[in-house]
Amino acid sequence: MEEDQPRLRQYDSWCRRVDELLVTEAWKKQKEIAAREGVVAIAYERKYGEFSRIYQMAKLMLWTSGAGLYSCPIAMTDGCARVLELNGTQEMKETVYTRLISRDPKKFITSGQWMTERPGGSDVGRTETQAVWDETRKCWSISGFKWFSSATDADVTMLLARTHDPNLSAAPGSMRDGSKGLSLYLANVRDEEGKLNGVRIHRLKDKVGTKALPTAELELDGMIAQQVGDNYRGVKNISAILNITRVYCGMGCTAAMQRFILGVKEYARRREVFGALLKDQPLHLATVANMELQYRATSQFTFYCIAMLGRIESLDNNLPQVKDQDIPLLRLLTPILKVWSAKNAFAMSQEAMECFGGQGYMEETGLGRAMRDVLVNTIWEGTTNVLSLDVLRVMAETGGDALDLFAEVMYPCHLLI
Amino acid sequence: MEEDQPRLRQYDSWCRRVDELLVTEAWKKQKEIAAREGVVAIAYERKYGEFSRIYQMAKLMLWTSGAGLYSCPIAMTDGCARVLELNGTQEMKETVYTRLISRDPKKFITSGQWMTERPGGSDVGRTETQAVWDETRKCWSISGFKWFSSATDADVTMLLARTHDPNLSAAPGSMRDGSKGLSLYLANVRDEEGKLNGVRIHRLKDKVGTKALPTAELELDGMIAQQVGDNYRGVKNISAILNITRVYCGMGCTAAMQRFILGVKEYARRREVFGALLKDQPLHLATVANMELQYRATSQFTFYCIAMLGRIESLDNNLPQVKDQDIPLLRLLTPILKVWSAKNAFAMSQEAMECFGGQGYMEETGLGRAMRDVLVNTIWEGTTNVLSLDVLRVMAETGGDALDLFAEVMYPCHLLI
Amino acid sequence: MEEDQPRLRQYDSWCRRVDELLVTEAWKKQKEIAAREGVVAIAYERKYGEFSRIYQMAKLMLWTSGAGLYSCPIAMTDGCARVLELNGTQEMKETVYTRLISRDPKKFITSGQWMTERPGGSDVGRTETQAVWDETRKCWSISGFKWFSSATDADVTMLLARTHDPNLSAAPGSMRDGSKGLSLYLANVRDEEGKLNGVRIHRLKDKVGTKALPTAELELDGMIAQQVGDNYRGVKNISAILNITRVYCGMGCTAAMQRFILGVKEYARRREVFGALLKDQPLHLATVANMELQYRATSQFTFYCIAMLGRIESLDNNLPQVKDQDIPLLRLLTPILKVWSAKNAFAMSQEAMECFGGQGYMEETGLGRAMRDVLVNTIWEGTTNVLSLDVLRVMAETGGDALDLFAEVMYPCHLLI
Amino acid sequence: MEEDQPRLRQYDSWCRRVDELLVTEAWKKQKEIAAREGVVAIAYERKYGEFSRIYQMAKLMLWTSGAGLYSCPIAMTDGCARVLELNGTQEMKETVYTRLISRDPKKFITSGQWMTERPGGSDVGRTETQAVWDETRKCWSISGFKWFSSATDADVTMLLARTHDPNLSAAPGSMRDGSKGLSLYLANVRDEEGKLNGVRIHRLKDKVGTKALPTAELELDGMIAQQVGDNYRGVKNISAILNITRVYCGMGCTAAMQRFILGVKEYARRREVFGALLKDQPLHLATVANMELQYRATSQFTFYCIAMLGRIESLDNNLPQVKDQDIPLLRLLTPILKVWSAKNAFAMSQEAMECFGGQGYMEETGLGRAMRDVLVNTIWEGTTNVLSLDVLRVMAETGGDALDLFAEVMYPCHLLI
Repeated sequence: MEEDQPRLRQYDSWCRRVDELLVTEAWKKQKEIAAREGVVAIAYERKYGEFSRIYQMAKLMLWTSGAGLYSCPIAMTDGCARVLELNGTQEMKETVYTRLISRDPKKFITSGQWMTERPGGSDVGRTETQAVWDETRKCWSISGFKWFSSATDADVTMLLARTHDPNLSAAPGSMRDGSKGLSLYLANVRDEEGKLNGVRIHRLKDKVGTKALPTAELELDGMIAQQVGDNYRGVKNISAILNITRVYCGMGCTAAMQRFILGVKEYARRREVFGALLKDQPLHLATVANMELQYRATSQFTFYCIAMLGRIESLDNNLPQVKDQDIPLLRLLTPILKVWSAKNAFAMSQEAMECFGGQGYMEETGLGRAMRDVLVNTIWEGTTNVLSLDVLRVMAETGGDALDLFAEVMYPCHLLI
Repeated sequence: MEEDQPRLRQYDSWCRRVDELLVTEAWKKQKEIAAREGVVAIAYERKYGEFSRIYQMAKLMLWTSGAGLYSCPIAMTDGCARVLELNGTQEMKETVYTRLISRDPKKFITSGQWMTERPGGSDVGRTETQAVWDETRKCWSISGFKWFSSATDADVTMLLARTHDPNLSAAPGSMRDGSKGLSLYLANVRDEEGKLNGVRIHRLKDKVGTKALPTAELELDGMIAQQVGDNYRGVKNISAILNITRVYCGMGCTAAMQRFILGVKEYARRREVFGALLKDQPLHLATVANMELQYRATSQFTFYCIAMLGRIESLDNNLPQVKDQDIPLLRLLTPILKVWSAKNAFAMSQEAMECFGGQGYMEETGLGRAMRDVLVNTIWEGTTNVLSLDVLRVMAETGGDALDLFAEVMYPCHLLI
Repeated sequence: MEEDQPRLRQYDSWCRRVDELLVTEAWKKQKEIAAREGVVAIAYERKYGEFSRIYQMAKLMLWTSGAGLYSCPIAMTDGCARVLELNGTQEMKETVYTRLISRDPKKFITSGQWMTERPGGSDVGRTETQAVWDETRKCWSISGFKWFSSATDADVTMLLARTHDPNLSAAPGSMRDGSKGLSLYLANVRDEEGKLNGVRIHRLKDKVGTKALPTAELELDGMIAQQVGDNYRGVKNISAILNITRVYCGMGCTAAMQRFILGVKEYARRREVFGALLKDQPLHLATVANMELQYRATSQFTFYCIAMLGRIESLDNNLPQVKDQDIPLLRLLTPILKVWSAKNAFAMSQEAMECFGGQGYMEETGLGRAMRDVLVNTIWEGTTNVLSLDVLRVMAETGGDALDLFAEVMYPCHLLI
Repeated sequence: MEEDQPRLRQYDSWCRRVDELLVTEAWKKQKEIAAREGVVAIAYERKYGEFSRIYQMAKLMLWTSGAGLYSCPIAMTDGCARVLELNGTQEMKETVYTRLISRDPKKFITSGQWMTERPGGSDVGRTETQAVWDETRKCWSISGFKWFSSATDADVTMLLARTHDPNLSAAPGSMRDGSKGLSLYLANVRDEEGKLNGVRIHRLKDKVGTKALPTAELELDGMIAQQVGDNYRGVKNISAILNITRVYCGMGCTAAMQRFILGVKEYARRREVFGALLKDQPLHLATVANMELQYRATSQFTFYCIAMLGRIESLDNNLPQVKDQDIPLLRLLTPILKVWSAKNAFAMSQEAMECFGGQGYMEETGLGRAMRDVLVNTIWEGTTNVLSLDVLRVMAETGGDALDLFAEVMYPCHLLI
């Protein structure tokens, strides 16, 4: 789908702003497939109890390579469903949550997650977007600028905004600074007539990869929204999404590694060089074996985390296994999983390219595109340094207990990684 | 120049094959600049004796970032000049060599190097192209297929072909198999009227990067050529080019690393995050310091090799320094330099992208393009494994002496790398 | 569909010639629709006797505006069906004719018509393509060059070739010169495995309009074919196609005029200027009235010819109405219809554009594209001068009788035109 | 230059609006050539008295075919110079007029002319743009929307705006309705730092032709401007531009016709058909002869008008030749010249295409582009109907005298046309 990218039609023929997002038929089909296959639903129906997450993610892993990046909106939809499950009002659960996890293509909706602003992506405390209570319409009215909004074609979106305190005057100072002034909001992207809900799409991002994804720069001006969870608890509340999407990064990178290796093996079975097939050249074999090891380790790590996530979501949180082990350990390991899998999957994309020789550098093999796409994982949802700081934070917050737990639990399996 | 790529006009309006290569004005300008600045000439005029190579490569390093990949044809031109200096006939020296090293834009010509064929890039022994002596025209006539010909707009080219033995019949078996049947040839790409010399350009390659470079798939059918050096010594004779172009890889990767770091530092001085400039964030600083170290090590390594090359080319080859040290050591280190610099420069391109956060993933910062371009070095002129085997070959051929020499000479500087 | 044009993939990734034609999904759908709606079938099933052609063409007129130029391959398919009905062998009728007129999308096939060569389009006597009898395979083998082949994605094709006389030697002179040496052939474009039947697609034409149509330059080299009709009667035999396709030109131009006028009227009902709607401005009204008149006259003329065609195809050809009037009159009027409708439809496209003012010159209204598409009718199947000469030829051949007949039959209706 | 079209870069990488217009190097060169060749200057230096216009327009006719549509900004620049000569203040003459007619590429500036708005192009009385006096800055501040602004890269521009009457309140009704409320303004497009002067470029128009021209939709918001001529006399004052630009239409169409015929003749000398060169085919010759006649008539008509314009601009306006004949006759003939030349040049583009047969319909011959470009003349500066009404207006205003004058003066030359 890279050849047939989303486009933005900003004005009609009389130069009236319309901000129409044009996506391909194939992109629309993926939404239908996602619904019918229940790729979000499986995790929330919990038919298989604590193993539901494992089943869902294994299915996603099979689907993602052919899904043309539709796993990105699915990740955010999944995250949004989790937030609403935890913090949504009864009404939100009935009108939004049930549709996020629906298997009916006509009901199924997706969610965006609009965080990054011009002053800072990771530094969410610099969020400039503001939410003001509109007494007349009994809702929040949100205005600001979102610099990087993936999957702008979503139906609803989660976003952070600095909440105006009604007890204070509107003058400067009426907002709390930093991340402590932020609350979480849920909004429809379009109203019932299909008109954008106080959103202007300024342009589609010219990204290095993930070109099939309609990512955009958005200006919000009076977007009607509802608050999710308590006031000023935005960062805490949105973290449930981030935990989900970071696990998706792990799963996506594992899938990419698998695909690289399958291609490399297939080529090695057919390409002859120096009098033998590539697969029978010892040095080449050693290279592939090393790649295989990397892939298996990442796969183990990813599904280890997914198993914990599944238990947390479906078992009693007071169970010692969940309370004392899964919750703190997943909190510690999630950022590490994200960094590990992203860095390794990208490095493997380069290794795979070498395994194809000159053909690897041709766009026709698709390796260039796969490399550009997998690359996004090293930046999206936190770079190496940002996530490293997060790991330090967990260590500090737990007074070192997290690290002890890690040593205790993980040591026996250290040889696997 | 990525936006304005070379194009191939294959047919005229009556569908007669013309194979016209359309390159940009900017590309043509680079050729003029290269001549006037003497970027090839400096190395062969040897005004600065053994330091001429250092001066030349330092100049190239400054130029290459802004040269829009024109350093690629320059590398091959330089290599071709070296081959002719060593093995060219008097006539080749007068008519071709002097123009390859000319400072006059009107005289200056560039050379291609056409090696890669469909059955094998590195496995040059599978070369299918054949050279047959044409008694009438008193020249060699070359026919075959070159799958990846960089800088197809060159004026002359070096190429390998399987030499037909005139003493044997034309029947199968009249050619020697493997790399021992290959000789080296020099040919004009076009004749005096500008018509292609027995060449058909089938298509431009759709590469992942280096898109400004007109790389093509060529069919040769009766290309008139002259043999360079002895019969059946093609692989040995062309290795002089490869030694030069691999040093260019080192230089080019060093230049790329320098450019990544300069960008990263500049951004760190301006971008504020978590209440301080990036440059004042300890973890970010550590990351940049590590990149700086990588860059400096690569730079040292590259210019260490360049210094040896300069001595070999300008001093008496019987000097112990040259004969016993520089020649064997450069032979051992050249493939290592190529692998080291390519792998590290590519890894650094990803690191640099992270240092820009979300902006790094936008095409506007140019990092994506720089990544795609530097990536070619991991494949062109030998992948990691191909060059590793080359290192093993040197060790074996020298009965381990090369390794001893390495230990002896390099040990004192091992801390630098 | 202009945005999503057909493309040619000429080589695979190992630079082996594949000549794969890539057309859009929408284009493929049109073929299905054409079959299901029986747009060819209606004319040959003759359920409505002499009125079948009128019904077919009226249906085509409704379909053509939305058919994205698929009426072009349909015209040639219809013409081919007519030729096979008249001159095909029993086997051709069973295997090809029945599929050309099938209503089953799985059986339905289309036909091309490859005439134009480099030395001459209208001057068919300069055809260079040759057909030689292949005694081994018991078929004709055709080689040559077709410069302009519309709808290259057809399943079969009709083409003219100079027939090699087996009684003469292959030396120069063994072929008859001029149009008297040509015979008509029928060939499959691809064999049962989907490989091209001795055809190389050199490139897609870069036409001014009809960009959705995959028109190409083709080289034939040993294309297996069957002769249709008698030896050396190619020009006469193919004329049945031309008579059909020229009537299609008339129908297509009428449809285009209708569409221009509908647009103009709709705009005039909504756009206000100088204090009144355009439709209430007398001068504008006069302009539109004149366009309407042109359209109605062309429509009358076109269906007058279609009615004659219907009688010729379905009634006894010895009926005086058919023999003495319809056949000679249609022969005279067909080239006039083609010229008249093409010239007027194109002129009207410009008039319509003026009626939209500045908006007409914007691509968004689609008028530019419609103009570029309708323009092809002034050239395809004969320019004004070529067809004028054809009219003169009819007059001369009939010793003036055709003209007398015209005067007699048409005079009463001259006021209509 | 159609392949390398102007582009708009609307946002910088932080999504700040920049509205940068990117034009090609070739386009910039044309501005230099225009200055050096004095294509505007000649008409105002009047070195050749009344013949200066003839000399200028003859020179423009030679230049225009190769000027890649740069004659469009030149036409508006010429018109602007004329308005300032007639109605400019002393300061405008010194600072703007002298630069519009400069031969020094460093001083030479061009002017746009921004008239067309969304409610009406020709119906200028519906202009919505407003000018309000800014007492603080002692200048007019203009706001509104211009729907079609040719040559947006001009340095200054002329534009109409509805003048706010300072004696009335700002409430609705404080503006005079219709064309009687409009005044003419002169504004710099950018300030001294290169920033747009209260202008936002919303998008480049997607025109059917003239694609090399950067035409745009502009929003004005507080554009600083100076009034030219008296209050509420805008339509009268701008008519001096229109008279010039319509004569340019005549000249441009004549040049286009000349170019079509030259191409057709050249092709007829080389292309053989039916046993003879096209030029020796009687019917083809008759077609070309007719085209030649059209071209010569248009040429005569155009230069007849240019001669009158030259006299009006350089002789004493009280001379009977000027006062009683040239002024009223040019007023009558200018709209006729515009319609005549535009309609005929476009028709000839189609005729020329037929003369090339199938090749005419290939983009490679350039006829398609020439057709699309010349087409703009039928719409720009007034469609047939708008100009026909203008002719009626002249007849009515002069009580029929203009018509009498036409009969008297033109009758003797009627055979020429």
